Amino acid sequence: MPNAHPHKLLVAQGGGPTAVINQSLAGVVLEARKFPHIEKVYGALHGIRGIVNEDFVDLTHETSQTLERVAQTPSSALASTRDKPDLEYCRAMFRTVQAHGIGSFFYIGGNDSADTVRIIAEQAHAADYRLRCIHIPKTIDNDLMVNDHTPGFPSAARFVAQAFMGLNLDSIALPGIYIGVVMGRHAGFLTAAAAMARKFPDDGPHLIYLPERVFAFDGFLADVKAIMDKYGRCIVAVSEGISDANHNPIASSLAAQIEKDAHGNVQLGGGALGDLLTKLVKDRLGFSRVRGDTFGYIQRSFFGCVSDVDQKEARAVGEKAVDFAMRDDRDGSVTIHRSGDYAVRYALTPLKDIAGKTKVMPDNFIAASGHDITEAFRSYLMPLLGSGMPEAYRLSRTPVAKILTKE
Amino acid sequence: MPNAHPHKLLVAQGGGPTAVINQSLAGVVLEARKFPHIEKVYGALHGIRGIVNEDFVDLTHETSQTLERVAQTPSSALASTRDKPDLEYCRAMFRTVQAHGIGSFFYIGGNDSADTVRIIAEQAHAADYRLRCIHIPKTIDNDLMVNDHTPGFPSAARFVAQAFMGLNLDSIALPGIYIGVVMGRHAGFLTAAAAMARKFPDDGPHLIYLPERVFAFDGFLADVKAIMDKYGRCIVAVSEGISDANHNPIASSLAAQIEKDAHGNVQLGGGALGDLLTKLVKDRLGFSRVRGDTFGYIQRSFFGCVSDVDQKEARAVGEKAVDFAMRDDRDGSVTIHRSGDYAVRYALTPLKDIAGKTKVMPDNFIAASGHDITEAFRSYLMPLLGSGMPEAYRLSRTPVAKILTKE
Repeated sequence: MPNAHPHKLLVAQGGGPTAVINQSLAGVVLEARKFPHIEKVYGALHGIRGIVNEDFVDLTHETSQTLERVAQTPSSALASTRDKPDLEYCRAMFRTVQAHGIGSFFYIGGNDSADTVRIIAEQAHAADYRLRCIHIPKTIDNDLMVNDHTPGFPSAARFVAQAFMGLNLDSIALPGIYIGVVMGRHAGFLTAAAAMARKFPDDGPHLIYLPERVFAFDGFLADVKAIMDKYGRCIVAVSEGISDANHNPIASSLAAQIEKDAHGNVQLGGGALGDLLTKLVKDRLGFSRVRGDTFGYIQRSFFGCVSDVDQKEARAVGEKAVDFAMRDDRDGSVTIHRSGDYAVRYALTPLKDIAGKTKVMPDNFIAASGHDITEAFRSYLMPLLGSGMPEAYRLSRTPVAKILTKE
Repeated sequence: MPNAHPHKLLVAQGGGPTAVINQSLAGVVLEARKFPHIEKVYGALHGIRGIVNEDFVDLTHETSQTLERVAQTPSSALASTRDKPDLEYCRAMFRTVQAHGIGSFFYIGGNDSADTVRIIAEQAHAADYRLRCIHIPKTIDNDLMVNDHTPGFPSAARFVAQAFMGLNLDSIALPGIYIGVVMGRHAGFLTAAAAMARKFPDDGPHLIYLPERVFAFDGFLADVKAIMDKYGRCIVAVSEGISDANHNPIASSLAAQIEKDAHGNVQLGGGALGDLLTKLVKDRLGFSRVRGDTFGYIQRSFFGCVSDVDQKEARAVGEKAVDFAMRDDRDGSVTIHRSGDYAVRYALTPLKDIAGKTKVMPDNFIAASGHDITEAFRSYLMPLLGSGMPEAYRLSRTPVAKILTKE
């Protein structure tokens, strides 16, 4: 049954940035123009905080050219927030929503944002206020339940893959040990994407450590030693979220004071983990040329490394969100389902199936060794990276016979 | 007077990787094919170490297709070295050079590599051995004397600019303080390139700290405080080589043990400087959302962020090197000179003018404040970044009148 109730639409963006989050925003705004009963399209600045503070902008008259250009620009154009609403916060939001006659709410974000949408939908229902609530998926972590993958992840994965392509070539030229720390608190998808850098049999990353598997210092050192014996160089991709057997993050064993964000998540940033692992390898294995870098914020916002598949899908989930809300008239989270190799379809899934839950790497994506990925993961990720991936080439290196040196 | 003496040509690559170092290699190999008296084109593996070890590969029969594909691949295809030759090392090299009948030597690298070429040329002259010695410029540091700029720098600068574009957008969405540590031991060019990320008046980086100016903790904190008061967010670009009034690197004041490479350069890598500055801002200014990332090796080898201007010039200096050696028959370093806006010409400069010397940012490129760059620097760098630079767009953000909130 279609929703033809005249109302104002509100859209907002939550959580961390991605390269394509504004594609979804453009999808919502442009799709909304097809429905005459949507009288205005408002955007809340800084996510739900903009609702509490009544910080709305009118997107109704943004030109399509501006929207298309903003769609190509990384990071939330409406700005974001890490706020998680409590009851008081929700009440404040409702005062604004009611005062402005908002009839549908679209929130682009991850599993915390989905949970926010769920709470708002419950409150609206309890207050008998007519409000369509739709969550639009977005996260570089790729950790939303039900979804085959999430918008933002493919472009971040592409960045990580291209970075490790370069780091591998760097290491061939100047051999040593390199440890790259990649984002991913609980899910290792983004770290695992480093494996897409490989082309030749000796290419790195040679070791990949994921939060889905217990990280043990001794095993790590033995792995590095084995790779050094084999190749004389070693590229390691490690997730910031790696943990010990007691589920304590390796990074947090360092920090005297652990900072937490508003969601109670431990802040794992900074160079501490990379520096710890680097020092460990130097001290315990005696190698001198060891370097650790933390990819940090660069990997989630870099301007100029985007998957065209990701762009199109991020646009589509925005469009579909409005479509589902208006034509089906029910709440939910837009989800992406793989329907072919490679094709996707979009569905509207109950919010409770997504909200606050975390998907991690399935076992068949992780090698039995625990420090590599499988061919199944490569097949899964390959089509998401989009067109025009760079590819490394090598000289044939035909040896010249030695004259002086007896071999 | 042209060099028509039948001989074998030897090419090698030294120092750190760049995105375009193989363009110069392809330039040498393909240009050499125009001269019938060049009987063979050899490549030494791992720079001058490959000469000592007699590790040569025959590039004579590499297909032009392979060379063109390798040219597009970052980081030294012949592999590199940080070795700096002493007298014994030089003697070992000469034994190989003479045994194989090498008549011309081309070394692609920075100021250390240029110094190596200078030493070899001197030794050849002293031994009365006929050897043309040419240095081909390459360094992301942009610190070679005489040159307007050096191949590899424009692509690295583009990476840094695009990274800061994203980081600036990230910070608009989720305001806080961000400190990005960029490579550059003595010269601030690459760090200064962060300024190209700015489009709108409030865009970051808001503060840029270069090794050419004394870094003082108190001044830094006051600068950050002032930007936070003005914009509520602050993006800082800082060179890894920033030093105090006594010329001691800020980074080294941390490390109990300073590691040095074979050239006696202090190793400034790792996340230490970023973490120190982050902690300082948190502790002294009381801001909580502070993040520091070290760009590290990613910025010098990233596969997929390249300036087409840089590619063409890197190819050209390789071609010109062979051309100068064969047609002018003299030693030297190929240098790039700006001849128009924008156009360049190439010259052959005496090795002693380049070898072992370091160019730093001229005063007219650095703002009087000491923590920013000038319009002159922007004009200098802009044409080097190449075509297709991404550009950020914003929504017009037309405010909606508040109903509940009294302003």
